[in-house]
Amino acid sequence: MIKVFGHTAPDTDSTGSPIIWAWYLNEVRKTPARAVLQGEPNTEAAWMLTRWNLDKPEIIADVAAGEQCVIVDTNNPAELPASINEAEVLEIIDHHMLAGGIKTRLPINITVRPLACTATIMHDLIGDDLVAAPEAVKGAMLTCILSDTLEFRSPTTTPHDRAVAEKLAADLGVNVSEYAAEMFAAKSDVSAFSDEALLKMDSKEYELGGKQLRISVLETTAPQVLLDRKDALMAAMPGVAAADGADEVLLFVIDILNEEATLLVPNDFVKQVAEQSFGASVSGDTVVLPGIMSRKKQIIPALAV
Amino acid sequence: MIKVFGHTAPDTDSTGSPIIWAWYLNEVRKTPARAVLQGEPNTEAAWMLTRWNLDKPEIIADVAAGEQCVIVDTNNPAELPASINEAEVLEIIDHHMLAGGIKTRLPINITVRPLACTATIMHDLIGDDLVAAPEAVKGAMLTCILSDTLEFRSPTTTPHDRAVAEKLAADLGVNVSEYAAEMFAAKSDVSAFSDEALLKMDSKEYELGGKQLRISVLETTAPQVLLDRKDALMAAMPGVAAADGADEVLLFVIDILNEEATLLVPNDFVKQVAEQSFGASVSGDTVVLPGIMSRKKQIIPALAV
Repeated sequence: MIKVFGHTAPDTDSTGSPIIWAWYLNEVRKTPARAVLQGEPNTEAAWMLTRWNLDKPEIIADVAAGEQCVIVDTNNPAELPASINEAEVLEIIDHHMLAGGIKTRLPINITVRPLACTATIMHDLIGDDLVAAPEAVKGAMLTCILSDTLEFRSPTTTPHDRAVAEKLAADLGVNVSEYAAEMFAAKSDVSAFSDEALLKMDSKEYELGGKQLRISVLETTAPQVLLDRKDALMAAMPGVAAADGADEVLLFVIDILNEEATLLVPNDFVKQVAEQSFGASVSGDTVVLPGIMSRKKQIIPALAV
Repeated sequence: MIKVFGHTAPDTDSTGSPIIWAWYLNEVRKTPARAVLQGEPNTEAAWMLTRWNLDKPEIIADVAAGEQCVIVDTNNPAELPASINEAEVLEIIDHHMLAGGIKTRLPINITVRPLACTATIMHDLIGDDLVAAPEAVKGAMLTCILSDTLEFRSPTTTPHDRAVAEKLAADLGVNVSEYAAEMFAAKSDVSAFSDEALLKMDSKEYELGGKQLRISVLETTAPQVLLDRKDALMAAMPGVAAADGADEVLLFVIDILNEEATLLVPNDFVKQVAEQSFGASVSGDTVVLPGIMSRKKQIIPALAV
């Protein structure tokens, strides 16, 4: 039984893509496979599971030596099970920069494309066989694309991501703007989460100027709910950083509808990063960065200190 | 101008694939690109260039910081220009195990497939646009596949590699067995090469039991020509190993027509490797390994000490 999984902080793409690919392996390639998760799905991913009546995949802690697996939506060992290099990785499908840590003993299938969403790549790999997919699989595919593109607002969006999502929506009889509004409302409901959980919810480690950073983003249609908690969020940062041996947490609150980010500025280091990276002029403990929506395409490439 | 190149010891696939992809980038994607080499093409690759009236690509020593390039037929930094991680890698197309050393700053196109030949992967990526390709490009594609599959004898050969080659041969009016015989004769003509050059001609570094090995193969239809030189080849091994900081050279003479390898056994270490890896019983200074034709699929996965 092949395990298919994404990264350690399962957002919609890292929850939906394993489900899509496990369907494809089972039903088209006739190879037994199962979607699993490396953590609890976020609120938007959980909403997708309910909306399409999909079972929540089992959460795994690690993989066993020699276990067959397919990695989706990441290629970064820091976001993969600790024993990944002892497992038998059969395939990688991803849309992130090459992190450079995974090795294989034989050639395998690797498909990385500079598209907004892993599910878009899967759409292309599945090809004509997609007609056999149940609505729930197509629904997951649509949700992944709308999530990763922030309903086509993110600069990561390519015309191809948009065309695939619009074709799927038409096929499923889904009104994209109404559907995305429901989805973003689910993502924006963060009342149940602690400050620590919010800082870790959508977070990637990155090294900058000799410091280990956690680059966290929270995409929301209700940024004020998060900004009202900014003092508590900043107070929680040193503990969250220290827990993983990081030096700093950079939290960007992404306002989906207004297409801007607000960076929390707890100290002079983050102030300097904001000024060096985004040419921003920082006075208080937050700074608004107009047009910034994508960690991958805008934040990480700009980072400087 | 994008530079397209393969590995440091240009065989037919690492010479032909850059030519194929540069054609595709220029003529289909309308993106200026140029095939280049990292060393002199081997005799078979040189024969291909002459046979299809293709210009020999320029040989480069390194890439410049920020220079745009496409890597084909390898993903291993040890086989790439020294400054590769300072260049802008736009795409990787390969059929080898993941070496794990290349990093990118943004997501790029990466296509690795467990097929025998990079040119087969390119055939699939080019798709219907191949009808526009000149005969020389299709001829290079056919030659790459026949070379990497040893005319479908190598266990790396997949049904898809074979189907693509047969379709190309029919399209070009080429008789595969006559063509391959000419090609292998060119590859087997090693009279112009020194013992040192032969040991480095088709060689990959590999670590085994704390030792750094050069795993060299020579594919030929005339193995006796090489075996007649075995004393001189073995005498040259320590110098060739030392020049790159390696400990040992393992030379496998691959008899294409009889589908077997002869490993030269210069010392007890290599004798032990032969016995542990292939269950061989070694008495003299050579050992025949029936059925062994592929470094990637048979030799490297078997290596033990």
